[in-house]
Amino acid sequence: MKKTLIALAVLAASGAAFAQSSVSLYGIADIALVKAKGSSAQLASGGVSTSRLGFKGTEDLGGGLKANFLFEEGIDLTTGALKGNGFARQAYVGLAGGFGEVKLGNVYTAYDDISGATNPVFDSVLAPTVVWASTGYISNPGSNIYYASPSFGGVSGAVSYALDGSKQKVTSVNVKYEGGPVYVGFGYQDEADRTGNKFTRLNGSYDLGVVKLLAGYGQVKPEVGSKTTEYSFGADVPLGSALTLSTGLASSKVDGGDNRNSVGLGVAYSMSKRTTLYTGFRKENKAAGDTSLFAAGVKHTF
Amino acid sequence: MKKTLIALAVLAASGAAFAQSSVSLYGIADIALVKAKGSSAQLASGGVSTSRLGFKGTEDLGGGLKANFLFEEGIDLTTGALKGNGFARQAYVGLAGGFGEVKLGNVYTAYDDISGATNPVFDSVLAPTVVWASTGYISNPGSNIYYASPSFGGVSGAVSYALDGSKQKVTSVNVKYEGGPVYVGFGYQDEADRTGNKFTRLNGSYDLGVVKLLAGYGQVKPEVGSKTTEYSFGADVPLGSALTLSTGLASSKVDGGDNRNSVGLGVAYSMSKRTTLYTGFRKENKAAGDTSLFAAGVKHTF
Amino acid sequence: MKKTLIALAVLAASGAAFAQSSVSLYGIADIALVKAKGSSAQLASGGVSTSRLGFKGTEDLGGGLKANFLFEEGIDLTTGALKGNGFARQAYVGLAGGFGEVKLGNVYTAYDDISGATNPVFDSVLAPTVVWASTGYISNPGSNIYYASPSFGGVSGAVSYALDGSKQKVTSVNVKYEGGPVYVGFGYQDEADRTGNKFTRLNGSYDLGVVKLLAGYGQVKPEVGSKTTEYSFGADVPLGSALTLSTGLASSKVDGGDNRNSVGLGVAYSMSKRTTLYTGFRKENKAAGDTSLFAAGVKHTF
Repeated sequence: MKKTLIALAVLAASGAAFAQSSVSLYGIADIALVKAKGSSAQLASGGVSTSRLGFKGTEDLGGGLKANFLFEEGIDLTTGALKGNGFARQAYVGLAGGFGEVKLGNVYTAYDDISGATNPVFDSVLAPTVVWASTGYISNPGSNIYYASPSFGGVSGAVSYALDGSKQKVTSVNVKYEGGPVYVGFGYQDEADRTGNKFTRLNGSYDLGVVKLLAGYGQVKPEVGSKTTEYSFGADVPLGSALTLSTGLASSKVDGGDNRNSVGLGVAYSMSKRTTLYTGFRKENKAAGDTSLFAAGVKHTF
Repeated sequence: MKKTLIALAVLAASGAAFAQSSVSLYGIADIALVKAKGSSAQLASGGVSTSRLGFKGTEDLGGGLKANFLFEEGIDLTTGALKGNGFARQAYVGLAGGFGEVKLGNVYTAYDDISGATNPVFDSVLAPTVVWASTGYISNPGSNIYYASPSFGGVSGAVSYALDGSKQKVTSVNVKYEGGPVYVGFGYQDEADRTGNKFTRLNGSYDLGVVKLLAGYGQVKPEVGSKTTEYSFGADVPLGSALTLSTGLASSKVDGGDNRNSVGLGVAYSMSKRTTLYTGFRKENKAAGDTSLFAAGVKHTF
Repeated sequence: MKKTLIALAVLAASGAAFAQSSVSLYGIADIALVKAKGSSAQLASGGVSTSRLGFKGTEDLGGGLKANFLFEEGIDLTTGALKGNGFARQAYVGLAGGFGEVKLGNVYTAYDDISGATNPVFDSVLAPTVVWASTGYISNPGSNIYYASPSFGGVSGAVSYALDGSKQKVTSVNVKYEGGPVYVGFGYQDEADRTGNKFTRLNGSYDLGVVKLLAGYGQVKPEVGSKTTEYSFGADVPLGSALTLSTGLASSKVDGGDNRNSVGLGVAYSMSKRTTLYTGFRKENKAAGDTSLFAAGVKHTF
């Protein structure tokens, strides 16, 4: 006999008393057939989003205060193997209320909230931003204290600080504005004694209805050596109620060094709110020669 | 406060709208006391079925189409350790409809659908087919594309192809017929560059009511060396509404080489649809001497 | 769309038929900021209780008999990593009824039921019993057979025996009395060929209403070498409906050897039945010098 988790709507119908303690099981199963130039075709997990399984819940503490928890593990769908040990994506307990939200544990950094927000081609394996260095930050430093502010007229911010007994700190901050068709997000992360890298990111998007324009700027400043400066531009074009085309380009330039460029184009077809088919290609120019990649996949969210 | 997953029946009662997105948690906890000749008695996980925990769900996409996912991990109940990394048993996303079902990811091969179907003594640790070489196939090659056809008058088939960038392919196919008291299943698996083995399996059963007869034939053909030919015969005898006896024998013969034989006998008592007690013994004759094994255990399905 | 597990109360309201098969998802997310003398402040998982995620269920077999299963994994909330491989805390199947309960698999020993029951300062990272050697027993020997008796006028007992093919047995027993304000618990564990240690524990508490008195006695007898004798005394003082103070001291003395002492003090504030804030300190005197520790954390149970 199978047991089934019930939708929140049923819960609400059963009376407010039960809304006080809800636990959810959620996740993504995303896999694509990928063919890179010079390689055999193969399956790759997470063409658009990392496949995952999560458990989360909220408790209403009264007075607008809530206690939250979330445990989330990443999965390589080609083998079923976990990506990292246990809940390496996220595992935290938090308190939320009028003051914002505090999360403690294995939480994504504040920079991570901004990083992929305006990457063209669905921030997927097809995204030209694959050439970027500023996507190579530490997203899960562990032992992280994260605070997100409430929204003030569309403006909100977050800060995180990874505490480590060995003094290998990661400090991260973001500010963003969301209002009507406009999104602007700024993120900064200092990895200090861990990698010595400082990451800066500025993203923006504008939704004109017939097209949503995307732009991104990134910078990586290592403790020693040259800094890298990066740009991306893209457009999401709704071709129908269920079909979206996205295209874009990205560049990454090391001061006095190499320049890498990439273009990508993809389409996504929503079979439902939770299930999407996608396909497209990506082409990359770099000093070592051109590469290109074709992918077609399915993403199922639950 | 404990949260409880609700039976599907409740879901249905709540209105069809919620049937569109159901997530289930399921599994098996199976453990047995096992005493092998010359060894101390010990607990062994999975006397009948591998202990496991799984998460699966179905989304109705309309027009008879469904999106499915399934994540399943094996558990050694004696230590709680996972069998393999993460969801090493299965992890896939799939689409099903009138055309059949496609699954992508870490899926069992088509051969696996057939392999244990008619093994005597509940395909358990007591099954005489333990002497078989044709049970030593790769069940989870990873990066697998699996297609199962719908049933045409009881006849259905499946094919799977494990895609691997390093060209270590596993190709697998099955055809089966199920109708009234008759079951016939044929499976073939070519492990090519992985092990060089080719597995063939033909299974059949006939349910006479007072007894269900079981027969199996297997063949393993390595790239180099002699082939192995194998037979099994068995009978499931219902002794009452809740009690079943199963017995059988199996042989495995390497061309121009060793012959191994085994007999097994077991009884299973269903305390409920989901909980079964079982016990029995298995005896094996081989060149290196006789071995025998006694087991008694409990299998709980949820 | 998020799926939500429903409270047992809803299940009951849906009719008794569904009470026959319930599966629960449960856990704890507990993290604290800890500052030890001479070290940097850092986050530590499980200030009061090990962070965990579990799955359990009960099936009513009729006639007062039930089948149970439980899978539970420990989590280091600072990294999300599992503590041990898979369900290293517990993984078992069991039968319960008028006769008591039998559990088979990866079950805690009978001694473990008693061990922390009267440790002062919430049996937390602030508990002075950290200096004890008798808390260093094997809690999860694996391949364990556990039996707990029903309560006879408040008296109950349990016995466990870890079966291991390599003869490394762990035998454990407990007896306890619970009635009105009184609790007394006795535990004994013989780790034979595993560590050679024999553990004895006697715990008691008396609830006077304005204060609950706690006392503990422990002894560790190694196969070779001197035995260790240990005491603890403590008090839980309810300061209000939601606020509890707990304090205590503990000592550990090796025969003819070192003496270690510790004191601890903590307060716990219940924001709700499921969410608690806690803080306090611990001080320890030992031959190698004094140490002390401050902690403040949050424990969320779901």
